[in-house]
Amino acid sequence: MIAENMKPLVKNNSVIRQMFEEGDRLRAIYGADKVFDFSLGNPNVPAPAEVKEAFLDILENEDPIKVHGYMSNAGFPEVRHAIAESLNKRFKTDFGMHNILMTVGAGSALNVAFRILLNPGDEVLTFAPYFVEYGNYVSNYGGKLSVVPANTENFQPDLEAFKKMVSPKTKMVVINTPHNPTGVIYTEETIRKLTDILYDKQMEFGTEIFLLSDEPYRELVYDDVEVPYVTRYYANTLVAYSFSKTLSLPGERIGYLLIPDEAVDSSEMIAAAGIAIRVSGSVNAPSLIQLVVGRCLDLKADISYYKRNRDTLYGALKEYGFSCTEPQGAFYLWVKTPTEDDKAFVAAAKSHNILVVPGSSFACPGYVRLAYCVSYETIKGSLPGFKELAREYFGE
Amino acid sequence: MIAENMKPLVKNNSVIRQMFEEGDRLRAIYGADKVFDFSLGNPNVPAPAEVKEAFLDILENEDPIKVHGYMSNAGFPEVRHAIAESLNKRFKTDFGMHNILMTVGAGSALNVAFRILLNPGDEVLTFAPYFVEYGNYVSNYGGKLSVVPANTENFQPDLEAFKKMVSPKTKMVVINTPHNPTGVIYTEETIRKLTDILYDKQMEFGTEIFLLSDEPYRELVYDDVEVPYVTRYYANTLVAYSFSKTLSLPGERIGYLLIPDEAVDSSEMIAAAGIAIRVSGSVNAPSLIQLVVGRCLDLKADISYYKRNRDTLYGALKEYGFSCTEPQGAFYLWVKTPTEDDKAFVAAAKSHNILVVPGSSFACPGYVRLAYCVSYETIKGSLPGFKELAREYFGE
Repeated sequence: MIAENMKPLVKNNSVIRQMFEEGDRLRAIYGADKVFDFSLGNPNVPAPAEVKEAFLDILENEDPIKVHGYMSNAGFPEVRHAIAESLNKRFKTDFGMHNILMTVGAGSALNVAFRILLNPGDEVLTFAPYFVEYGNYVSNYGGKLSVVPANTENFQPDLEAFKKMVSPKTKMVVINTPHNPTGVIYTEETIRKLTDILYDKQMEFGTEIFLLSDEPYRELVYDDVEVPYVTRYYANTLVAYSFSKTLSLPGERIGYLLIPDEAVDSSEMIAAAGIAIRVSGSVNAPSLIQLVVGRCLDLKADISYYKRNRDTLYGALKEYGFSCTEPQGAFYLWVKTPTEDDKAFVAAAKSHNILVVPGSSFACPGYVRLAYCVSYETIKGSLPGFKELAREYFGE
Repeated sequence: MIAENMKPLVKNNSVIRQMFEEGDRLRAIYGADKVFDFSLGNPNVPAPAEVKEAFLDILENEDPIKVHGYMSNAGFPEVRHAIAESLNKRFKTDFGMHNILMTVGAGSALNVAFRILLNPGDEVLTFAPYFVEYGNYVSNYGGKLSVVPANTENFQPDLEAFKKMVSPKTKMVVINTPHNPTGVIYTEETIRKLTDILYDKQMEFGTEIFLLSDEPYRELVYDDVEVPYVTRYYANTLVAYSFSKTLSLPGERIGYLLIPDEAVDSSEMIAAAGIAIRVSGSVNAPSLIQLVVGRCLDLKADISYYKRNRDTLYGALKEYGFSCTEPQGAFYLWVKTPTEDDKAFVAAAKSHNILVVPGSSFACPGYVRLAYCVSYETIKGSLPGFKELAREYFGE
């Protein structure tokens, strides 16, 4: 009885569900502290103390009718204003509150962006490996996602291949930096080259091509690597942002879509985005959490926690002989599997109670993703298992 | 540059936006206390005190990683369990937590229901007057909304007309009780007759027809009128619920979709609904507010406040000579306009600084809707204007 286009989703979902259930099964048998679950990007670092203080202060001192009430579909004006000011200060931009539309997390921001721009049959390009939901989001609006193969040398995008794939049907290009699943940050050189290609192709085809920058990990950066602010390089840029990882609030579903004035037809896009938020059924982003993040814009979760996890896990895996990319941001370690069959490696890891996600789930087989946003005890506890795995694959 | 299907939405939106802006313009000229704005269903009654207590207790005493973290796409198990138990106790039903999927308000619950069931071209029936967003929600998934004309005698649905309109293409029927915009509650007799028709038509056509009951106003009922629980009358019933009005939390976007085991292919629908929540980009309903409403299931906003507003406004308008339906639930008064041109009446009311919504916005011209979820001062302050309007239309 369910809709035809839901049937493949239900069928494929069972694969992911099996992974969750497998984790529960293992925890039930061996105990939670003997299972090393690197499968989920659910931060294990609590939100900064100021987040709780903001919640309590708003609940105690603000008018509940405002705090829990409807506002404009695009969000509370003062929150949008504060976000624009914060971006302007940090990235030398010139946004106003009208450029910021509050959304139910970055997932909703991406959906709004696709909805307001895609006509059925329009092509969206992204780079492998990529977050698999992009495909679902694009097909929500009849678009077609095409994937530029991975540059496995350093996981910066393969711009030569990209250049050949941009066509007159290309309406949007999605990038994600800092990157899930590789932890790579796109360099300024990458952004310059990529946007130069887009400007050239717009000219060549007489089309407008929109760059959608998915940035939930913008604030999670190690060793002061810089993350270029993409609107400064290309006019037709939209930014999808989330506070999920920055403030360890993934369940609260709060983020925004940024549409700069420089983008073509920006006023029409901004009007359409407000309506898209409304008619999606979400009506507006949740109200109290909007006010909370509006007070916490210069904060972020304890990055030193993730850095210690990164250094310990990356250091150990390198030492054991694994080939992996050192993460510059986010909280994922991307490891080349010692066999081409990444699913076989996932199964081998599971026999050591280590749960990881195969690269084939990110359109890049031959790798696995480890989400190291876990407790330090999980990191330490997993190391003997990884050492055993190394022995199995590489010998003594 | 925006998507073709967004263009009419942007164009029509400006009409509604003009109404908001008109309110702001009038308030700037005459002062907020001299403008009587009955246009919006934004409750003016604060949430019950226990809601704030629940917020504070959870923030002070629960693990923030859980409170603000990801959970199953369908929501926290204990919240879903508590909701099922509360329904079972109140309505003699037999739901389990698996029947409840937490959503970003009822708007999102309706979208999920349409998404999991509609194939392009499927027909959805509803009854005039109706909440205009139904049309947008249905067309999000390629469905076609058809509207049974209003029964202007008592605004119970016109079941004779309905019976003739149900066709082999009818996949879903949407009802809303207590009703926006009329305040009518569908009687048990209405529910019985309506569901009898659906059973007959399923048999006649060999199809499955799903009844979607949109119930954000279920708890807002005057004079102990009973609101039948629809799953008890018809197996293929889905329920969309919101805590927005019950607990005065409309901005927080928290509700649920209920899919009972008795509905055909219920397991497949439940699986599909969880996925629909995920791939819509909302991922899950906001986390903290899930836990809050889970502790406040037997509470509701102060109904005596709305009752005083209803009695005062309804009493006065009747006295002045207006013909209106006495609301049994919700917080809307539905008034027959003294002229057939409801938009002309809206303009006349505006000249008295009274803002109301024309019935034509609900596919039922010749009426206006007054949202009386406003302060009592607004009610009292508006009465001289209504008296003047009556004099203009009815004479001395």
